[in-house]
Amino acid sequence: MIHVASGGLLDRRSFLHHGLAFSSVISTGSVMAGTPASAPNNPEQIAPWMRQAGAIDVPYGTPGAAEQHVVKTATVRAPQEAIFNMWHTPLQHLRGTITPNGLHFGVHHNGIPAIDPAQHRLMIHGLVNKPVQFDLEQLMRFPMESRITFLECSGNTAPNALSPFARDESCQDLFGQASCTEWTGIPMRLILQQAGVKAKATWCVAEGADGGSHTRSIPMNRVMDDAMLALFQNGERIRPAQGYPMRLLVPGCEGNMNVKWLHRLELTDQPAYSKDESGLYSEVLANGQIERFTFVMGVKSVITHPSGQQQLSTPNGYYEISGLAWSGSGKVRQVEVSADGGKTWALAKLHGPVLDKSFTRFSIPWHWSGRPATLMSRATDDRGHVQPTREVWKKRYAAHSFNHYNAIQCWHINRHGRVENVYA
Amino acid sequence: MIHVASGGLLDRRSFLHHGLAFSSVISTGSVMAGTPASAPNNPEQIAPWMRQAGAIDVPYGTPGAAEQHVVKTATVRAPQEAIFNMWHTPLQHLRGTITPNGLHFGVHHNGIPAIDPAQHRLMIHGLVNKPVQFDLEQLMRFPMESRITFLECSGNTAPNALSPFARDESCQDLFGQASCTEWTGIPMRLILQQAGVKAKATWCVAEGADGGSHTRSIPMNRVMDDAMLALFQNGERIRPAQGYPMRLLVPGCEGNMNVKWLHRLELTDQPAYSKDESGLYSEVLANGQIERFTFVMGVKSVITHPSGQQQLSTPNGYYEISGLAWSGSGKVRQVEVSADGGKTWALAKLHGPVLDKSFTRFSIPWHWSGRPATLMSRATDDRGHVQPTREVWKKRYAAHSFNHYNAIQCWHINRHGRVENVYA
Repeated sequence: MIHVASGGLLDRRSFLHHGLAFSSVISTGSVMAGTPASAPNNPEQIAPWMRQAGAIDVPYGTPGAAEQHVVKTATVRAPQEAIFNMWHTPLQHLRGTITPNGLHFGVHHNGIPAIDPAQHRLMIHGLVNKPVQFDLEQLMRFPMESRITFLECSGNTAPNALSPFARDESCQDLFGQASCTEWTGIPMRLILQQAGVKAKATWCVAEGADGGSHTRSIPMNRVMDDAMLALFQNGERIRPAQGYPMRLLVPGCEGNMNVKWLHRLELTDQPAYSKDESGLYSEVLANGQIERFTFVMGVKSVITHPSGQQQLSTPNGYYEISGLAWSGSGKVRQVEVSADGGKTWALAKLHGPVLDKSFTRFSIPWHWSGRPATLMSRATDDRGHVQPTREVWKKRYAAHSFNHYNAIQCWHINRHGRVENVYA
Repeated sequence: MIHVASGGLLDRRSFLHHGLAFSSVISTGSVMAGTPASAPNNPEQIAPWMRQAGAIDVPYGTPGAAEQHVVKTATVRAPQEAIFNMWHTPLQHLRGTITPNGLHFGVHHNGIPAIDPAQHRLMIHGLVNKPVQFDLEQLMRFPMESRITFLECSGNTAPNALSPFARDESCQDLFGQASCTEWTGIPMRLILQQAGVKAKATWCVAEGADGGSHTRSIPMNRVMDDAMLALFQNGERIRPAQGYPMRLLVPGCEGNMNVKWLHRLELTDQPAYSKDESGLYSEVLANGQIERFTFVMGVKSVITHPSGQQQLSTPNGYYEISGLAWSGSGKVRQVEVSADGGKTWALAKLHGPVLDKSFTRFSIPWHWSGRPATLMSRATDDRGHVQPTREVWKKRYAAHSFNHYNAIQCWHINRHGRVENVYA
């Protein structure tokens, strides 16, 4: 085994040298009795589902019966009582980078409105030459673009920001307000252009058609750059929980700015200072100052396998450490992993394509000795931003601040193989 | 308007020159009465869903009520009677390149087996040093890779190959046995390596655990190249209809080779000549010869918007022609579009990232004059393969052959704006 850092981190080619790291696991695989060729003809080897015709498919498929535990979970544990709730993606059960639509996180301040798409209009007014509105049929004829991008709630991982002790929670509980899908829609600049943007328009105030008229102010330069009126998610029309019939997508910016159920854009020369941006989504610093309009999500990463509340099955065996990294500023440049609580680090493999403002999967082989270990990941983006330690992050913000928490995550593995959230 | 070919094909920047191509549509958008700022305060403008709290989210989301028509359709129209059936993706309702899992096409020869993942094993035997089998827990510890890739049934678009007249069918009917998702799993070479591949092993016979023991033979060099044991699709565990708990993925090759419910791999020095490869999936040529082991899907494209049975709403207006292109040999290099039945062609825009053996979205702006028009798309891949005309394709194959049909598709638009499948 070629070690690349202490604590059992291995060279990425170590798996190819078979008989080494993985041999202990392979030896537990049953070698077939008798000659291989005869085994399939042994009736005892033929499973019941091979002896009969299977079930008929359905027009819209769903996951299998054995995967019913892979669901979103709600922060408010009695979700039927909460129109303000946060639904978390089960990152510890997923692989790759795409989140299936049914599992995309969602924060709903006022529940999910039941919008009639035939009646829905997108209105553009304020500092424009010609106020206009569009129905869906008109919008469907605009040129469209696609991009794979993550969304993350500003308050994702809040328990680690707020709690004085590390709570024993899962990756889903702590990091599940982040997801990544392919969005397709119309570049916002093409839509605004139809109304004619006046030179003094510096802000775009976006309002949703939900019961609380969720409202955020977005600088015009950002709207005219890569913002999108999103109509499709992973190929199909976006779902009600994600803003049907249309939402604003502002890649890299906190989830709350990606206004769902979008129905109104007012161009102005100042922000609206709406409740949704002045209240919940501003941050108090340690020195008492308040940061507002903190749009861009910082560089961040988390090891999803192994992660909080999981159980390693075999001591002294091979594992693949696998996780996700992302940055609201651009691409992920590198992810370093430590298996000894931050004393030594090794570069993880980034699985391409590494896309702008998108989840990037990283991995590194690991031999777990069976002794306690602390796993950490530290991402760097292509602007050179690096994740801070929790200690550094906490020094900057007031004790009750929790938005934009992006500190290095630590998972502790005890000698029984149980994984637990810890602070460094 | 800058024309790039006859029939109304426009320069890709034409939309930016507002007031030109799109102005006729914009002028049909209602300009708001009164001052813009007052309109949102007009109670008549406030939709009922803005006056109340919305619905509560659910643990696993589904599409909205207004999109219930976006479903797979079955080739056998009484699907409850058919364990052999083909389910088609509604490409004409989708945008971007990712297919949501619930809408991925599927061809089931023996229905969908209900496999208990705890009892399922992957067995490797034949020309190996050590026959082995793996359970899911062991497999989940292997290093994993992800790739976005298309799957296409060898018989996709068969009606256009077989029917002497062009049948009036939709894009879904004709092209819907093709889909594209992100697959995550274990490189096959890493798994086979655990058994030790003997030098004389030249074929890998893959068998599914369905009621018909679906079996295909795959050359070892292809298995050792980019084949994958797929465990996840678009992030989540693959669904029963797609091969749960595991399937073989052989990127670029006909769907049938991507054996679902994979449970056995036998390494051999010759193909199995199974019913599934000798029967349905060989092609008879015009000269009476039979081509077998025709694995790789050819370069192909289809305009999804506008497409068969759709209706253009406005004559003399702007449209975006949008479609999908793919090749089993590599990346799509270019797509040309014609709006005059093939007399003149213009290059469409390819929407990146353009990935190997993956759907690539293309588009080109188009001004429809209101007169009859015939739209066509012609893709070229990075190996230089170009789609043939239907006439050329038919000359090569016997009259009753239909697999690997990849001829240039023609959609005719009549003066009422209805789109219909035609032969050139």
